[in-house]
Amino acid sequence: MKGKLYLIPTTLGEIDAKIVLPDSVIARIQMLDEFVVEEIRTARRFLSPLKMSKPIKDLKFHELSEHTDPLRVPSFLESAEKGSDIGLLSEAGCPCVADPGSILVRAAHEMGIEVVPLVGPSSLMLTLMASGMNGQNFAFVGYLPKEQGARIQKIKELERTAKSKNQTQLFIETPYRNAHMVEDLLKNCQSDTRVCIAADLTLPTQFIQTKAVAEWRKSAPDLGKKPTVFAIGA
Amino acid sequence: MKGKLYLIPTTLGEIDAKIVLPDSVIARIQMLDEFVVEEIRTARRFLSPLKMSKPIKDLKFHELSEHTDPLRVPSFLESAEKGSDIGLLSEAGCPCVADPGSILVRAAHEMGIEVVPLVGPSSLMLTLMASGMNGQNFAFVGYLPKEQGARIQKIKELERTAKSKNQTQLFIETPYRNAHMVEDLLKNCQSDTRVCIAADLTLPTQFIQTKAVAEWRKSAPDLGKKPTVFAIGA
Repeated sequence: MKGKLYLIPTTLGEIDAKIVLPDSVIARIQMLDEFVVEEIRTARRFLSPLKMSKPIKDLKFHELSEHTDPLRVPSFLESAEKGSDIGLLSEAGCPCVADPGSILVRAAHEMGIEVVPLVGPSSLMLTLMASGMNGQNFAFVGYLPKEQGARIQKIKELERTAKSKNQTQLFIETPYRNAHMVEDLLKNCQSDTRVCIAADLTLPTQFIQTKAVAEWRKSAPDLGKKPTVFAIGA
Repeated sequence: MKGKLYLIPTTLGEIDAKIVLPDSVIARIQMLDEFVVEEIRTARRFLSPLKMSKPIKDLKFHELSEHTDPLRVPSFLESAEKGSDIGLLSEAGCPCVADPGSILVRAAHEMGIEVVPLVGPSSLMLTLMASGMNGQNFAFVGYLPKEQGARIQKIKELERTAKSKNQTQLFIETPYRNAHMVEDLLKNCQSDTRVCIAADLTLPTQFIQTKAVAEWRKSAPDLGKKPTVFAIGA
């Protein structure tokens, strides 16, 4: 009997995990002693307050990041092959969404290991829900290009797609480029295009607003370095 | 001071809400006494076991479905205008995702009412996580056309988009057409195209598998009338 691969959502910032995770998910995490994580240091920081059944120092970690050799990934599932359950953790929110975790899940399917996704916070889903934009047709396109010319091109393409297909377009930006992203959006989108800005989701400082670009131009938000999800709607 | 509009996820089937909702979300629901819902009967069934602070018969409900006159929607927010909090419930999972709730949220933004999305199960996010497909670029396109010719066209278009843009394509089907959907997918997609089938998510009967079409053809799943999310990957 093989073990299972549990996909474990984590908090979206400095907040008690109990506020955003069901008790059943925390109970499941407590039972595990082997994890695939993006960064061991932050994974330990997330797990420490959760009263794990084993001491943190006895937990086993494998690091899976953009830099991991794909050929090594199946070896992370060795314990599951032998019957032990394993957890996959993201840096923030749901694993495999906007992170490199899906390569591990793909390997699990190929090896016949059952994959069990657990419920928790997804900044994309929270933004979509709260945006007031079309939730019957939407896309998430990850990070936009870093180079300004290419980024503006991409913003205009997303705006066209949002309007022509009535498909909400979600994307993210590294927090230290928030100000540039807001500036590029407000300068390059049409006045009637609706933009949703959702920052610090689930945190006490949460900010979520949807306005037409013309309205945003009157008072552009100062997002600082808050983790932010953006959406363009029809 | 205006009230807030809370976006409340519900269970994905016959399961205790405590298994899939954080305690903080249940505590928030218990405090509310006015809700916008798709169907009052199922909303009552969801709320009854939650130990609401008021008796169920004293709760106020507004029905918002595909048939609701959009002009009536802002009136559902009257209590929030006057300072009381209101909850928006979906039939299953996250409100405003694959349901008509976003029209209420849009009105809330326009009226300056704070919108607060709560954490809970999203069948789309659970499927994406567990699919092993690209989670850095994905789209959800809702229901496919009912008419078979148009449905097959759409399936082929989704397959092309999945491969050309490396964008995972998620969609749903009304459960009694599951068998037709599986048949159309397996007959019309290319052998190497990966298809994820995720049924009864979060329930004890949960089934999630990703395989190449050639593999699925050897043993097509019998989904019965289980609620199912489908995904096509690169």
